[in-house]
Amino acid sequence: MVKLPRAVRQLIDSFERLPGVGPKSAQRLVFYLLHNPDAQIDDFASRLKALKLETVLCSNCHYVSEHDPCEICEDSDRDKTLLCVVEQPLDLLAIERSEMYEGQYHVLHGSIAPLNNIGPDQLYLKDLAERLVGVTELILATNPTMEGEATALYIVEFLQDARERGANISKELRVTRIGHGLPVGADIEYADGVTLKRALEGRRQM
Amino acid sequence: MVKLPRAVRQLIDSFERLPGVGPKSAQRLVFYLLHNPDAQIDDFASRLKALKLETVLCSNCHYVSEHDPCEICEDSDRDKTLLCVVEQPLDLLAIERSEMYEGQYHVLHGSIAPLNNIGPDQLYLKDLAERLVGVTELILATNPTMEGEATALYIVEFLQDARERGANISKELRVTRIGHGLPVGADIEYADGVTLKRALEGRRQM
Repeated sequence: MVKLPRAVRQLIDSFERLPGVGPKSAQRLVFYLLHNPDAQIDDFASRLKALKLETVLCSNCHYVSEHDPCEICEDSDRDKTLLCVVEQPLDLLAIERSEMYEGQYHVLHGSIAPLNNIGPDQLYLKDLAERLVGVTELILATNPTMEGEATALYIVEFLQDARERGANISKELRVTRIGHGLPVGADIEYADGVTLKRALEGRRQM
Repeated sequence: MVKLPRAVRQLIDSFERLPGVGPKSAQRLVFYLLHNPDAQIDDFASRLKALKLETVLCSNCHYVSEHDPCEICEDSDRDKTLLCVVEQPLDLLAIERSEMYEGQYHVLHGSIAPLNNIGPDQLYLKDLAERLVGVTELILATNPTMEGEATALYIVEFLQDARERGANISKELRVTRIGHGLPVGADIEYADGVTLKRALEGRRQM
């Protein structure tokens, strides 16, 4: 039986491990690369190697940065009384793009997902209680998914526990959840029931 | 404005160049890799580097192989009177899997696609005429797409030209096109008109 060369099969295998890349797309990608100039493939390879070498997780907020602490934690202009918890670095960037938030962040790098074997211990959660000194509002901006909701609920309980165990968490600390409802530009006719329920619960005086 | 580290942006850029990978999926892939063990990323990088170093296009049939000539061209048991033209190495593998063909191959590495700036000169086509010495049947197994059909027609004309210019092509050479029609397991009710037309044209005595 004729087989593909080992180098081709191994690279297909590496691509297949990526999320959302099936065996057929992995093959297609590798054969596409085979027709690319050598320099471009070498570039790709060295960028892969550089990914971990040139980046570091901020030891404070766990954002991916070039230096530790990251530019957000170092920025003295930012409001130290606000702390926003997000699941992923890309969520942080999305909130930054809204230009509505000037506080600090805490990146969990995931959400509690028992089906994928991700519990609280797999998240950057343990040091959250220590970061609340001087914070007056903790905004839970995890995704409005089952996992994100579970994570938000877990954090509320986790902080109550920490307070009972003597952690220095102010009684005035407000824990808020990012608003749920209809996205801008959406059509009520096509909105799902859960979103509409949340939109009604979250209605505001005009 | 907070930005992603340069290493992250550059790798996203490399992924975005792959066919079928948009900006969002490229971001998702890079953040997935960030959470992978270093060893696995290094593995991926060295496999990329190995792709071109450890493979070679067979100078005879242009299949991707570990050595030149490839295992198919070297195999003295294969029928040297049959030559099958395919677009891609994966097409060759698919035909091999059918276990119905014992002849030689010629891999074009593409099809004529003027919209993508791919003309006959971008394909491994020039040496096809020289490979026809001793061949009695040339099977054109390019895809049944617009590009594949155009390529098959081009090859027919190209061989006539070559013969007129004195190339050593036997007058007995049969040039055949792979059969078109309904795929096994298909439903006539849902077949498109062009496929049904080809299926009727290609009907055979039972």
